[in-house]
Amino acid sequence: MINAQYILLKMKIMKRVVLPTILFIATLLTKAKAQDVSMFPKGEISTTNNHTGTIWLNELSVGDSVFLNSIAFATYAVGAKLDWHIHPAGQILLITEGTGYYQERGKAVQIVHRGDIIKCLPGVAHWHGASPDSGFAYIAITATAKGKTIWLERVTDEEYKRAK
Amino acid sequence: MINAQYILLKMKIMKRVVLPTILFIATLLTKAKAQDVSMFPKGEISTTNNHTGTIWLNELSVGDSVFLNSIAFATYAVGAKLDWHIHPAGQILLITEGTGYYQERGKAVQIVHRGDIIKCLPGVAHWHGASPDSGFAYIAITATAKGKTIWLERVTDEEYKRAK
Repeated sequence: MINAQYILLKMKIMKRVVLPTILFIATLLTKAKAQDVSMFPKGEISTTNNHTGTIWLNELSVGDSVFLNSIAFATYAVGAKLDWHIHPAGQILLITEGTGYYQERGKAVQIVHRGDIIKCLPGVAHWHGASPDSGFAYIAITATAKGKTIWLERVTDEEYKRAK
Repeated sequence: MINAQYILLKMKIMKRVVLPTILFIATLLTKAKAQDVSMFPKGEISTTNNHTGTIWLNELSVGDSVFLNSIAFATYAVGAKLDWHIHPAGQILLITEGTGYYQERGKAVQIVHRGDIIKCLPGVAHWHGASPDSGFAYIAITATAKGKTIWLERVTDEEYKRAK
C-alpha cells in the first residue's frame, strides 16, 4: 500500500504541478511570439484633433530634400479612425496588422487586411480606420513634395456603420 | 498489486503519451506564431546575377509618374548578400526580420536588426545582406526619379568576413 500511495502521490504531483507548468510555459511562449509581430515600436499616442479613438504614431523617417517621403508606423485601437483628408502628393499604405476600413469620397468602403497595399492618389478625399472588431496597423509612405495633409470633416457614425 | 500496476500504467501513459502530445501542440502553436511574423508573402526567388545566396523578392508597388518610389519586400536566406551597388536617387530600408549587414564604401560594416531604419543616400556605393547566422528581411523604398540601380562588383569573402 505504501508503494501504491507513493505512486498515487507522484501522479497527483504530475497532474497538479507538472502539467499546469508545461501549459503555462507553452502559453508564455505563444504570447511572446504573438507580441513579437509588430516590427516597430507603437510610438506615442496621437493627441491631434483629426481622429476619433486611440491611434499610436511612430515616425520612422521624416521627408527632406533627398528623401521626398515621410514614413510612419501607425497603430489603431479597435474602432479608431481618421477624419476625411487629402494627401496633395499621394500616400501608400502597407497594412501590417489587423483589419481596417478604407474609403474614397463617393465610393464604397473597402475592408482591408494585413498584407494589403493601398494607394491613395493625390488630391483624393478619403479616410481610413480600424474595424469595429479589430485593431489595425500600417506603414504609411507619404509623398511630401506638395505640402502637408489637408484635414477635412469627421467621419460620421452613419458613414462608419455603412461599412459593415 | 493490480491497483498499483494500474496506476503505474496510467503514469506511463501520461509520461509517454500525454506529455509529448502537449509539448507537440505547444511547439506547433509557437511555430504558427513565428511564421506569422512576415506580413507579406516572400515572393519569388531572385534569378538576377547581382547577389550570392538565396533572396526572395515581392514587389509591393512599382514606381510611376505619381508615386516616385518602388516598394519591395526582400527576404534573405542565412549568408545571402547583394553585390555592391548605387541607388541614383537613394533608398530607405525598414528592417522587418532577423539580423543583417550594411556597409557603405570606405566605412565599417554596420550590424542591423529588425526595427532598424537605413538610409542609403543617392550615389553612395554600398551593399547589404544577411548575417552568417541569421536570415534577414526588409521593406525597401527606392526612389525611382533618377533611373535604375547601378550594379557594381561582388562583395568578396574577405569583405563579408571582416563584418564579424
